[in-house]
Amino acid sequence: MIPAELIKKKRNNQKLEKDELSEFISGYVKGTVPEYQMAAMLMAIYFNSMDPDEIDSLVTVMLESGERMNFSQMDRYVADKHSTGGVGDKVSIILGPLLAAAGLAIPMITGRSLGHTGGTLDKLETIPGLKTNLDLSEFKRQVQDVGIAMISQTDEICPADRMMYALRDVTGTVESIPLICGSIMSKKIAEGIQGLVSDVKTGNGAFMKTKERARKLGAALQRIGESFQITTDIVYSSMDQPLGRYAGLWCEIQESVAGLHGKGPEDTMTITYELGSRLLMQAKLAKSRAAAVTLQKNLIQSGAAYEIFLEMVQAQGGDPKVFDKNQEHHKARFEQIILASSSGIIQKMDTYRIGLATVELGCGRKKASDLIDPTAGIEFYHKIGAEVSKGDTIIRYFNSHESRLTAASRLLMNTFKIGDEAVEHELIFQ
Amino acid sequence: MIPAELIKKKRNNQKLEKDELSEFISGYVKGTVPEYQMAAMLMAIYFNSMDPDEIDSLVTVMLESGERMNFSQMDRYVADKHSTGGVGDKVSIILGPLLAAAGLAIPMITGRSLGHTGGTLDKLETIPGLKTNLDLSEFKRQVQDVGIAMISQTDEICPADRMMYALRDVTGTVESIPLICGSIMSKKIAEGIQGLVSDVKTGNGAFMKTKERARKLGAALQRIGESFQITTDIVYSSMDQPLGRYAGLWCEIQESVAGLHGKGPEDTMTITYELGSRLLMQAKLAKSRAAAVTLQKNLIQSGAAYEIFLEMVQAQGGDPKVFDKNQEHHKARFEQIILASSSGIIQKMDTYRIGLATVELGCGRKKASDLIDPTAGIEFYHKIGAEVSKGDTIIRYFNSHESRLTAASRLLMNTFKIGDEAVEHELIFQ
Repeated sequence: MIPAELIKKKRNNQKLEKDELSEFISGYVKGTVPEYQMAAMLMAIYFNSMDPDEIDSLVTVMLESGERMNFSQMDRYVADKHSTGGVGDKVSIILGPLLAAAGLAIPMITGRSLGHTGGTLDKLETIPGLKTNLDLSEFKRQVQDVGIAMISQTDEICPADRMMYALRDVTGTVESIPLICGSIMSKKIAEGIQGLVSDVKTGNGAFMKTKERARKLGAALQRIGESFQITTDIVYSSMDQPLGRYAGLWCEIQESVAGLHGKGPEDTMTITYELGSRLLMQAKLAKSRAAAVTLQKNLIQSGAAYEIFLEMVQAQGGDPKVFDKNQEHHKARFEQIILASSSGIIQKMDTYRIGLATVELGCGRKKASDLIDPTAGIEFYHKIGAEVSKGDTIIRYFNSHESRLTAASRLLMNTFKIGDEAVEHELIFQ
Repeated sequence: MIPAELIKKKRNNQKLEKDELSEFISGYVKGTVPEYQMAAMLMAIYFNSMDPDEIDSLVTVMLESGERMNFSQMDRYVADKHSTGGVGDKVSIILGPLLAAAGLAIPMITGRSLGHTGGTLDKLETIPGLKTNLDLSEFKRQVQDVGIAMISQTDEICPADRMMYALRDVTGTVESIPLICGSIMSKKIAEGIQGLVSDVKTGNGAFMKTKERARKLGAALQRIGESFQITTDIVYSSMDQPLGRYAGLWCEIQESVAGLHGKGPEDTMTITYELGSRLLMQAKLAKSRAAAVTLQKNLIQSGAAYEIFLEMVQAQGGDPKVFDKNQEHHKARFEQIILASSSGIIQKMDTYRIGLATVELGCGRKKASDLIDPTAGIEFYHKIGAEVSKGDTIIRYFNSHESRLTAASRLLMNTFKIGDEAVEHELIFQ
């Protein structure tokens, strides 16, 4: 294989064969194909895309670069939930324990904050003592014992993806549907799951800005899932405003716990139940959407879902006592509010800038070495469609680093558009 | 500047400003922008091209990465000739001394074999003792004293181009008109010339396969030249067959010397005179094409051009005695011939494969560390349009490494198409 010839082949929009992709990518993992050649290949893929055969080859090669888990000895339906990412999206933290309580096994490898979006892993790690870097045998044992584990990507799972992802991030090649699909699906398949539901988000706070692109991604994820014998459902949802009342770190854990206590915000719980229903029906634990929603509500009402959450926290080394009443953790030292500049109805929120503001506050990283601030976050008093009067508090934002609070203020100015028209916000769409 | 953001900008087909290109490229030269980011940028440029402003910025930034020569104190017209490269193209070796004999100053920075095409530098270096790695002060002095010097690219001239070119070669990003233009023109402008003529070749042995692409490149070269106050002429010529009777190393030096003695092959001399006429008219040393051709023929007839050639060889450390009669140098140890497989008229030659065969024989390098064989080359007994009888020798090829001779044989099989129709070969076109 001459790497430059394969780059030219993709550049000229010719199809790459599986053995060609395999040699190129495994050469990259071994270091015989240098980063600059992979960078050129990634950009050529960005422009010329990949056909289904090439995408399947890419997934296979990334999958085979590491370990693939096997839960076939379990008598539970093994499944996972995925989201393309957004602002205030804490659904995994509620849904994972809820599905485990329903009898599913959930081996979830999850991610850190990325760009303007929050990361489940960063949120979980604000729980004192909680580890997310389990090795694969600990991970497997916990899935068997508790029914769920939520961990960070390990060195053993898809090392090719980890290297390629880091390179895509700095070479302007993130926004490529075949590369996004390859990255997501190789890791999900490596988890050894039977079923998957993906929450593909679109809107001004999502990576996919249009429904058209979201549907293209969703269709590709589903096709790959089925091609690797994973039953795959796609839910399309709006990220035109943050999910829930909070976006941040510890505040989202608190909001998730509220959700597990039956006191979650409506939008968050609606998506949670929708995603959960798909997997419960896949697992034949519910015959209809309605039955699946009822089942989930009951598991929350009974405390079973919250119980699993606490077991998971404890199994991963976290201190469940932080969730006792009257405990106060990660209290922010500084806060600011923003008031409605006029009376009217909230027409729009600039969710991308709100996401950037959470990063600025300390909920995410601008570079890998940045420290995060567990106390940081934003509370949304009102969202799209709400009527406000001039001077009402719309948002409150908080952290423990005053200069970063000031920097976030600049981003949060003018993120709300207030007008006269009534507005409907469609959360889940076809 | 965030390099990844500039890559995305180009990827999204937005215009890069001069200061952005400047920071990106100078960061690359200094090592703060890594090779993988430059590789991604180059591929994005390959796909989205560059507008004239961007190309001028690119040329300026590459130019400013190194030294720019200044011959303004000379009372000669300072000019250079350029070619996009081909097989058997020894025109520079004849034309340079010829123009110097006419009173022009020719500060020529020239290249090595590239891909399937030959390199003037590799040919010159077969002259015993001749150095091409002069430093800029030696180069300048020789241009002043002899009227011509032919050297390799130095570290001082356009270091950004040298680094970017090496990277393009291994990342499938050579065939991009803005990048080709930037590379060529930054070096030519750095030579401090007033006038330039470029021989843009097209056909099955050229980098530009179609006249359309050749004209696009020619127009871009001319626009850049004029934009940097260099009078620029473009000559379009065919590379559907090798130029002259020989393609190789020492054999092309011998053929060039024959040309300087008035015994050059017709096609080679036609292009030489055409290119020379453009510069002589630019320099106002001839009022018409006809007058310029006569002037050149006289300078050859009188021996003045050959005299300058010998002076140049001597100034660069070469031994002019190798050109004495009855001297035999670089005699090939092995040779083979190929015979006409049928009677008829030569319709076509696969010039690309012939070029690859010269590389295989030892006239070029497949990787930078390959050794070249000064004795290697091919002699063409007949070319397009010639009538041959079955069994006639069409080509003879030779070198001093038997296994490479055999490898070249495989490439040279079936490179000639013989048929019944009369064929015209148009050497120079509009």
